[in-house]
Amino acid sequence: MKQFAVIGLGRFGISVAKTLYEMGHDVLAIDKNEELISAISDYTTHAVQGDASEEGVLQSLGIKNFDVAVVAIGGDIEASIMVTMIVKELGVKYVLAKAQNDMHARVLYKIGADRVVFPERDMGIRVAHNLVSTNIMDYIELSPNYSLMELSVLPIWVGKSLKELNMRTKYGINVIAIKRGESINVTPKADDVLRKGDVLIVVGTADDIGKLEALSGRVAG
Amino acid sequence: MKQFAVIGLGRFGISVAKTLYEMGHDVLAIDKNEELISAISDYTTHAVQGDASEEGVLQSLGIKNFDVAVVAIGGDIEASIMVTMIVKELGVKYVLAKAQNDMHARVLYKIGADRVVFPERDMGIRVAHNLVSTNIMDYIELSPNYSLMELSVLPIWVGKSLKELNMRTKYGINVIAIKRGESINVTPKADDVLRKGDVLIVVGTADDIGKLEALSGRVAG
Amino acid sequence: MKQFAVIGLGRFGISVAKTLYEMGHDVLAIDKNEELISAISDYTTHAVQGDASEEGVLQSLGIKNFDVAVVAIGGDIEASIMVTMIVKELGVKYVLAKAQNDMHARVLYKIGADRVVFPERDMGIRVAHNLVSTNIMDYIELSPNYSLMELSVLPIWVGKSLKELNMRTKYGINVIAIKRGESINVTPKADDVLRKGDVLIVVGTADDIGKLEALSGRVAG
Amino acid sequence: MKQFAVIGLGRFGISVAKTLYEMGHDVLAIDKNEELISAISDYTTHAVQGDASEEGVLQSLGIKNFDVAVVAIGGDIEASIMVTMIVKELGVKYVLAKAQNDMHARVLYKIGADRVVFPERDMGIRVAHNLVSTNIMDYIELSPNYSLMELSVLPIWVGKSLKELNMRTKYGINVIAIKRGESINVTPKADDVLRKGDVLIVVGTADDIGKLEALSGRVAG
Amino acid sequence: MKQFAVIGLGRFGISVAKTLYEMGHDVLAIDKNEELISAISDYTTHAVQGDASEEGVLQSLGIKNFDVAVVAIGGDIEASIMVTMIVKELGVKYVLAKAQNDMHARVLYKIGADRVVFPERDMGIRVAHNLVSTNIMDYIELSPNYSLMELSVLPIWVGKSLKELNMRTKYGINVIAIKRGESINVTPKADDVLRKGDVLIVVGTADDIGKLEALSGRVAG
Amino acid sequence: MKQFAVIGLGRFGISVAKTLYEMGHDVLAIDKNEELISAISDYTTHAVQGDASEEGVLQSLGIKNFDVAVVAIGGDIEASIMVTMIVKELGVKYVLAKAQNDMHARVLYKIGADRVVFPERDMGIRVAHNLVSTNIMDYIELSPNYSLMELSVLPIWVGKSLKELNMRTKYGINVIAIKRGESINVTPKADDVLRKGDVLIVVGTADDIGKLEALSGRVAG
Amino acid sequence: MKQFAVIGLGRFGISVAKTLYEMGHDVLAIDKNEELISAISDYTTHAVQGDASEEGVLQSLGIKNFDVAVVAIGGDIEASIMVTMIVKELGVKYVLAKAQNDMHARVLYKIGADRVVFPERDMGIRVAHNLVSTNIMDYIELSPNYSLMELSVLPIWVGKSLKELNMRTKYGINVIAIKRGESINVTPKADDVLRKGDVLIVVGTADDIGKLEALSGRVAG
Amino acid sequence: MKQFAVIGLGRFGISVAKTLYEMGHDVLAIDKNEELISAISDYTTHAVQGDASEEGVLQSLGIKNFDVAVVAIGGDIEASIMVTMIVKELGVKYVLAKAQNDMHARVLYKIGADRVVFPERDMGIRVAHNLVSTNIMDYIELSPNYSLMELSVLPIWVGKSLKELNMRTKYGINVIAIKRGESINVTPKADDVLRKGDVLIVVGTADDIGKLEALSGRVAG
Repeated sequence: MKQFAVIGLGRFGISVAKTLYEMGHDVLAIDKNEELISAISDYTTHAVQGDASEEGVLQSLGIKNFDVAVVAIGGDIEASIMVTMIVKELGVKYVLAKAQNDMHARVLYKIGADRVVFPERDMGIRVAHNLVSTNIMDYIELSPNYSLMELSVLPIWVGKSLKELNMRTKYGINVIAIKRGESINVTPKADDVLRKGDVLIVVGTADDIGKLEALSGRVAG
Repeated sequence: MKQFAVIGLGRFGISVAKTLYEMGHDVLAIDKNEELISAISDYTTHAVQGDASEEGVLQSLGIKNFDVAVVAIGGDIEASIMVTMIVKELGVKYVLAKAQNDMHARVLYKIGADRVVFPERDMGIRVAHNLVSTNIMDYIELSPNYSLMELSVLPIWVGKSLKELNMRTKYGINVIAIKRGESINVTPKADDVLRKGDVLIVVGTADDIGKLEALSGRVAG
Repeated sequence: MKQFAVIGLGRFGISVAKTLYEMGHDVLAIDKNEELISAISDYTTHAVQGDASEEGVLQSLGIKNFDVAVVAIGGDIEASIMVTMIVKELGVKYVLAKAQNDMHARVLYKIGADRVVFPERDMGIRVAHNLVSTNIMDYIELSPNYSLMELSVLPIWVGKSLKELNMRTKYGINVIAIKRGESINVTPKADDVLRKGDVLIVVGTADDIGKLEALSGRVAG
Repeated sequence: MKQFAVIGLGRFGISVAKTLYEMGHDVLAIDKNEELISAISDYTTHAVQGDASEEGVLQSLGIKNFDVAVVAIGGDIEASIMVTMIVKELGVKYVLAKAQNDMHARVLYKIGADRVVFPERDMGIRVAHNLVSTNIMDYIELSPNYSLMELSVLPIWVGKSLKELNMRTKYGINVIAIKRGESINVTPKADDVLRKGDVLIVVGTADDIGKLEALSGRVAG
Repeated sequence: MKQFAVIGLGRFGISVAKTLYEMGHDVLAIDKNEELISAISDYTTHAVQGDASEEGVLQSLGIKNFDVAVVAIGGDIEASIMVTMIVKELGVKYVLAKAQNDMHARVLYKIGADRVVFPERDMGIRVAHNLVSTNIMDYIELSPNYSLMELSVLPIWVGKSLKELNMRTKYGINVIAIKRGESINVTPKADDVLRKGDVLIVVGTADDIGKLEALSGRVAG
Repeated sequence: MKQFAVIGLGRFGISVAKTLYEMGHDVLAIDKNEELISAISDYTTHAVQGDASEEGVLQSLGIKNFDVAVVAIGGDIEASIMVTMIVKELGVKYVLAKAQNDMHARVLYKIGADRVVFPERDMGIRVAHNLVSTNIMDYIELSPNYSLMELSVLPIWVGKSLKELNMRTKYGINVIAIKRGESINVTPKADDVLRKGDVLIVVGTADDIGKLEALSGRVAG
Repeated sequence: MKQFAVIGLGRFGISVAKTLYEMGHDVLAIDKNEELISAISDYTTHAVQGDASEEGVLQSLGIKNFDVAVVAIGGDIEASIMVTMIVKELGVKYVLAKAQNDMHARVLYKIGADRVVFPERDMGIRVAHNLVSTNIMDYIELSPNYSLMELSVLPIWVGKSLKELNMRTKYGINVIAIKRGESINVTPKADDVLRKGDVLIVVGTADDIGKLEALSGRVAG
Repeated sequence: MKQFAVIGLGRFGISVAKTLYEMGHDVLAIDKNEELISAISDYTTHAVQGDASEEGVLQSLGIKNFDVAVVAIGGDIEASIMVTMIVKELGVKYVLAKAQNDMHARVLYKIGADRVVFPERDMGIRVAHNLVSTNIMDYIELSPNYSLMELSVLPIWVGKSLKELNMRTKYGINVIAIKRGESINVTPKADDVLRKGDVLIVVGTADDIGKLEALSGRVAG
């Protein structure tokens, strides 16, 4: 069990705090807004009302003993920067901070943030890929080079085996799992035959995935 | 190629619009704010300044001919609702809308939205899982029952084959790919031996993934 | 005796609540504004200060047991929508809501409102008809095709019987009642003679009423 | 044809102006807000942007030649009073003004308004009566003593003649018309038999109407 | 001793209230602002914090028993009108109200004010006359036709008797008093000789006074 | 003819400027507000929009050549002080400034103002005296020791000569003029007989005037 | 030990108050803002929350017994003026006030301030001189004619004696001290040899200093 | 001649920019406020209106070619941070930034500022020392250990030579210059005799200076 401090209770911060708490971790939530604190109190170990950008506040909460601090402050860039600096100076080992834009992110890294995230921008990318075709259920970048995609089986694939489709040769794509209803087959065989409603989980390079997205959109849209 | 309209150019909307445009699709971006429109104009097919919550505006832009409308309006729930209703009434087939909270989402579904997303809440969940252990690189829910996780190889696993680790039996987890540097092996074999720095992509039930997260955090944190 | 909840205590909501209470019904009044609540408390069964757009609030007041909810929220369209959705989801059988404009009304119907009213627009129509001639006392649309009008007797009609006037043939209008001072004659006979000061209650199609309005204005104005 | 000036283009003023114009009258609409003026311009004879509470403005528009001025100014009580005084001083014969509350109304009458209306309060009363029973379609006060009510035929009345029901004796109520679908029978006979779906238009004293409302609610609600 | 109510404690209201109280009268001061009330409390008989534009407030203070009400409300014209109407309706015999401008004044008279004053405008007139020449000490309009002026003796008058100056003939002006230091001679004789530093109190028509003002300015400025 | 500059066009400044201009003087009016400038332009020699608290502005208007500057700036004490200092430093001989309160006045005198006035406070004093009795028409302080009062003739004085009333002995008061309708008698004789409706202009010490006020209130109120 | 009152706790006021207190003097700090007062309380003898521009406040604190008052009020020029006047009128012997600009300063001197400072302007001058060359460490105006400058030894001076450099003849500059590490030599001799890293403290006329600055920038920049 | 960019034109920035320009350097001034830009334009080489926190703005001005950037942004800490980061990233060699407080300063140093100044705090320290005694004319910290002080000659020193006073032994203080009227003697000799009105410039450790300050205050205050 680890100790997490989540500072700033916007939609992103609340979601981080609740998820960590549900996973069984110690979570301290901090926000200036008293209503948000009382709303979150049942979903965290501690919830404290206070202005984290005042140095003494975090110190008196013993922030240095926490493993991770999540600086999830939304609109106030100044506060986001000050709090990130304070938690690093007080000795928190790992600090994840949410940024509004690239410049904000660069400042955060320079003053010591270990990781900077852009929740809305990243979700935008993911949603855009999902939208391209109604056959694509989800899309996730695994690395700058590789992506993973969930893909509804196209009508023309129904009744064919993976061998017949030969996706690796045709599209440079590996099928790593087949979802069928609530179950998931993570060792798909060459002679597994696809049915209507199956969802393929495939991995490939960004380029190859792009071609398959285009095909999927053209055939099904 | 499909036709997309993105209404509302906050961080989420901008990200959706740019990604779709980079994938080669037609993208119309609409926002009340003239500065945002001129900033996005190089990254979309068309960028129009206007108040989409006034019915005539969207009609005169021929919105009914678009395949998909993304209602990415941020803080103004009333406008989000009105625009979602208008685009459905004007005949757009697929409407994805961003919600602030559950009640907002329920209204959006009732007035016809085809899909409702919560970018910040979903990113919060994903970030929380990543934070649990520095070995976990990424975490994605595939379905209510199954999740996918990227996991750095633990020190005690180095030099062992997948057969020796026997993760399916021990943890109910399937290893579906191994990332090694920039390459990715999507057909891992039983006798593949793990090296330091490898990243496993595994799939399992939420419960089993949870156990592995806990183990990973305990061993490595 | 029925149970009514009136949510939102603007001029319209106050008037609904007081009238229902004077008719002997149970009335629960709800508003965010404490002053309005204390001002209305003598004219309702219960008056509760609270934000009805927060789900728990209405639930804890047992709203599901009410026969009718009147959502009389004025300027805040978002709150009007949220509250309407909540009262329907909590199971209130009949929900009447006040709308600002057509789009607002369409959303309200889609999320389940049973009736939507436009108090100021409807009064505007009624007042406009009354203004056309000082002889017209009141004007009410009974249906898209038929209207009812109260009309002061024109000078040229005084001393004539209904038969002589023959309004049905001349104007397509039926005289259904004659008001004389404080009394009202609801079975006017063909040989009833009109006096100065009498007021006729007539029914006819919108077109026929229109002609009579024009005549009345021309003769008397 | 008469000349009307409508000052203030809130929902009430717009409705008055449009209705008068549709009836074929000359309508001059005045408001400080330029957007409202351009939106109304197709529905009035003239639409002028200006601050009517500045004396010269109305004078230069020749307001003294208008038959009727409607002071439909909404929230700004001071402006409502000033404009009402100006139009009376400039010689407009009939001035109807909208009031926020009783005190406002008393001031308006003292400075010369010929009629003062309370749109939202009056609609509240009407709506409240309609709500008492789902059988009551509409309710209108004809005078302090008499009201008119539209009433769906109760199940126990179906198949009975007006004579059998004998409403005048039982409830002191006169049936003056029967609506059946789109048509209206304004000379109901004693042996007319009521059908399911018929709507009765009845007239009676407030007390008698009240009893019938109660009965209707008890039987049908 | 009379009973005065002063409503509104701006600079004008405070000055009225204090002066009346110093003259030995009963003074009730009312204002919404608590600080003003506590500051004035030592200089009035009663000082009450409250919103006088709410009808019940003045009634509960027994305003109808006061001889005079001074409505000294400054910037809020609506409140000034409402309070003036209330005090008249509650039966105060004499109501003096302060106006912002002519239109405001006309409304006040129409709703029953007995006298309307314009403190800043009137002081402006008085100050303007005083400024015309440093010899003019004060200037007051007695009626539309007659004014009173205090005038330092011009150098060319020193050593001359009133008879020699013959002001009545030359300028149409009557010298009604001569101030010399702290004493005042109200029965000036024809052979009284003027000294340097004397101040004449003269009365005349506006025209004659104007000529003397001009002379005084020309000789002395 | 003198040159006057009036800076600040509130109600007091407008009144000063108009009165001086009507008396035939050169008047320059200055205010930041463009609307006020265009409204006053027909009633002054020059009207200039500008911020007089910026040094260059007054200099470029040649303020040093003016005989008198009236600093009539209302609510902004800082601007009032700055402008007063600037006009004195630029060499205007006589500067009259309006003050909000005693402290403001003391600052104005210290930085060189030649005279400081309190229009609302002074009118308050005058109005208070007028209110004491409906017989008192006007009241003006001539000096700390002497006041002038206009007084309606009391009923008990009607028909009596000044000799009979013997006001100088009884009350220490001198009657210096008698207003009768539109005319004014400035040389009242001992045997002049008072009529109903006459108004006496009297002069006396503050104490004596106070006694007469009290008498007047007691007899007539 | 002297008694100081510091009024206004912006960055300048706080710095003055803390420095005086550290030097062992009695310091009373006054500000309207309660948070600032509680933050400063450990660094002053007394810290009082109150509005110093209200006359009674300073009087009740016995301000007349203080030797020096520092009026460090920041943005509110009106308050700065009022407080300065009050402290002088109450008899404080020495009053130092902070000004925003020249006009503000002139007012402060006219109402009695003994010294007026411009912290940001003066620091701007000092910083500008320091910036001219990285060799110049500090620059201070001693009088309009003379300045003092700290100057890093230029590379071409290293190893030379003061006699060899002959700065008085070449540049009209006197070297009055040499800083070497933490020590300072205030009696530099002609044969003292300069080392790398030495800092010279020199005095000269503004012109001569300017020449040396230019030289320093040219050689070293 | 060097190239300076001054970003932010508050009192501090204006002072830096003007001083540098008067010293003959190239100065580019940048501010968002157009009025400030036009006011400064005569005192700088270039003055540009623009938002420096937008990256493109500074780049297009060729900021990388400037020797020094002064980030003099006042109240907006976020902008101060962003601009400081941008100018460093664009390659400006020396960046001086103004800070509001310690935390702000720490962030500035972390993102690359070469020097951070606190103008108001530093002036506060200097002013405080000057205030301690009316004999102390100025006080400047030369280093943490040494300070320089200007000191009026005390009455008891008049007529004595430096040798007699023997300040180095008594107080550990070196007299490095004597100001007499407009001239300055930077080579004071041991037998120079002090006169009334002379000012000594002395250097010493903070402790020794403190003692002399105390003495000076005791003798002269």
